[in-house]
Amino acid sequence: MSESKLRPIAGTHAIKETLFVRPRTVRVGWLDPKWESSADLREVHKTLISHKIKIELKPPAMIEKICRSHQGAVLYADPLKEPDLSFVKESTPATVLLLDGLEDPHNLGAILRTSWLLGIKAILLPQERAVGLTATVHKIACGGVEHVPVITCNQFAKPIEELKEMGFWVFGLSHRAKVSLHSWKAHEKVVWCIGSEEKGLRTTTERLCDELVQIPQLSAAASFNASVATAIALSETHRQHSLLNLSSKSQ
Amino acid sequence: MSESKLRPIAGTHAIKETLFVRPRTVRVGWLDPKWESSADLREVHKTLISHKIKIELKPPAMIEKICRSHQGAVLYADPLKEPDLSFVKESTPATVLLLDGLEDPHNLGAILRTSWLLGIKAILLPQERAVGLTATVHKIACGGVEHVPVITCNQFAKPIEELKEMGFWVFGLSHRAKVSLHSWKAHEKVVWCIGSEEKGLRTTTERLCDELVQIPQLSAAASFNASVATAIALSETHRQHSLLNLSSKSQ
Repeated sequence: MSESKLRPIAGTHAIKETLFVRPRTVRVGWLDPKWESSADLREVHKTLISHKIKIELKPPAMIEKICRSHQGAVLYADPLKEPDLSFVKESTPATVLLLDGLEDPHNLGAILRTSWLLGIKAILLPQERAVGLTATVHKIACGGVEHVPVITCNQFAKPIEELKEMGFWVFGLSHRAKVSLHSWKAHEKVVWCIGSEEKGLRTTTERLCDELVQIPQLSAAASFNASVATAIALSETHRQHSLLNLSSKSQ
Repeated sequence: MSESKLRPIAGTHAIKETLFVRPRTVRVGWLDPKWESSADLREVHKTLISHKIKIELKPPAMIEKICRSHQGAVLYADPLKEPDLSFVKESTPATVLLLDGLEDPHNLGAILRTSWLLGIKAILLPQERAVGLTATVHKIACGGVEHVPVITCNQFAKPIEELKEMGFWVFGLSHRAKVSLHSWKAHEKVVWCIGSEEKGLRTTTERLCDELVQIPQLSAAASFNASVATAIALSETHRQHSLLNLSSKSQ
């Protein structure tokens, strides 16, 4: 695989997780020449050596070009393989996330971290006009990128249709919605569609939703941060899904 | 009031909210000399003029010293007055937040934004070893700093005692807790204690809690971001409080 196809990964948490989950895909590790003064970087160095991965010492200014607030290391690894959506078919309860054009790598990273912890099955991203899996996204996700399959889509109509055929219900988060998250009833298979930071859900995406839902808020003058709104919706889904699990076990 | 006592506020959302809520406390507005090329900065400029607030044009490098990813403007305003805790006495249902040594301004800012939208009555911060209301916190909070009273405390034992006497129950978020947020029952008056990013709750703070609660998560190898964990706890409290409200109305 040519160098240009490799993907940079920053942040010591993310780097450790990648080296733990898929060391064979890592082609080279860049380290700050002063790596020995940091316990985290000593650990990364040791793991790179143990997997016989090439190490290159690079000046901090060069690492900074890859990720502004880096922690003295960057990995270059093969891109993650994107699975076919059909793999979610058998999961139940299951939640899938559709991110409709997020632009801020901090939001995408934070959502991947939350999604990992709440067991989200897959995240759909648009192919264009949105942030992808950059070095910063890896860093903020703290390892979440390795655990939540991301599928980039040309357009969302086809995968959403496919998910609906598998029994998924599609919900969109919108502050203009009439239904409150407090009265919302989760189905066993849920897709949450989250809009971009500035523009919210696109009309074409809203039309794919079975229902729009809003998070109750005290002031209409402001809005939730995209990653916070997503966490609130996913956590409520997780809560209801765990009740479903309990009631099915007691039957 | 001397210049050194003034507090910097960055971010156009935050700046607009401060100018809306308390224009008389704003002493000077710094603007990028190219302010006319931005619609947001034109609006800020117009508001500053209408309130007869002094405007100074400053090179971006100087504004950047106050807030790294500024948007071409900074206000200097009198510090916010901290209320006495007794003002929360009559509120019910009510939620108060105690942040036990957060260090990342992005987390504090995000929590203030969420707290504004979910109607949190007050936030307690420690006087030392924690981030305070910096320019960046204002920016990330998008106006939330103007709406959620912040009280800085020498130590937490006394204010927590005071809150308990007002009928508050004190809960600590901890991944070591036995009680799950999914089975947790909110009281009418709730204090949530949130630990710092790296160290979690301090033992002295844990001891002030009536109960420790954890957010269920699928992987023990990672943890929720502090602002995401806070949002999940506050949102669940908000949901249960809104049910209390509904049931009291139906009686």
